[in-house]
Amino acid sequence: MATRKPLNEDPCPVARGVDLVGDRWSLLIVRDAFEGPRRFGDLQRNLGVARNILADRLRKLVEAGILCTQPADGTPHQAYALTARGEALFPVVVALRQWGERHLFAKGERYSRLVDARTGRQVPFMAPLADDGTPLPASATVVRKLA
Amino acid sequence: MATRKPLNEDPCPVARGVDLVGDRWSLLIVRDAFEGPRRFGDLQRNLGVARNILADRLRKLVEAGILCTQPADGTPHQAYALTARGEALFPVVVALRQWGERHLFAKGERYSRLVDARTGRQVPFMAPLADDGTPLPASATVVRKLA
Repeated sequence: MATRKPLNEDPCPVARGVDLVGDRWSLLIVRDAFEGPRRFGDLQRNLGVARNILADRLRKLVEAGILCTQPADGTPHQAYALTARGEALFPVVVALRQWGERHLFAKGERYSRLVDARTGRQVPFMAPLADDGTPLPASATVVRKLA
Repeated sequence: MATRKPLNEDPCPVARGVDLVGDRWSLLIVRDAFEGPRRFGDLQRNLGVARNILADRLRKLVEAGILCTQPADGTPHQAYALTARGEALFPVVVALRQWGERHLFAKGERYSRLVDARTGRQVPFMAPLADDGTPLPASATVVRKLA
């Protein structure tokens, strides 16, 4: 097998993204942090993940500049909060949520909804658009690899 | 620790999505399949992943209805192609790509680009919008959990 660059040196942005958040827990930690800074125990209870695995993923997310730590209000504990780089994962979480809503629930099965806090209405479906604002399906795109 | 439903029964669509594509390889396999049906050997060479891991991930993606198998043109091999459910992951791959472009490359460092095949121009940045078409930041949204 040919030697291959590790994902964090890959020229494909998808590969570098997967390298940081492509695992069972990181995106769920980020999802929870969108609701505000989260303490270790809060995350552990909500996700039902083993403490050692959660500690490992939090360390990696802090190292990657996706989370930072700050004092938790009124307690001796630390809380994990999204950095600007972490906040920028919002479209990724929304895209995965909207795919899940449409494809992973039975007809009539209820799911938690992401809503616009001002209107209470569900966040509109998000998809790639062309420069002229028309929907851009995958079949109308191509990846330009580096020479 | 409280017993917790497995992710594939979780009321959160993000959790169900992570359950199917939240690992190091599945989204990269899907990314490759957007370029057309892919044979096992093609995927193995491009991803540099061990054969047994690739076989496991392909089996799971087929079981999840994200990929299907079809004859590879003019060869005795099978090829893996996206189903409609798999094609619907396009916004997820684009969101992860655009996050990677903006946050995981050094200034001036080159990366592979997703372009509109008709114009050759890079796919515009995609982000959640409110009903009125204005940008919808995470801070203006809230998750309505099931009661």
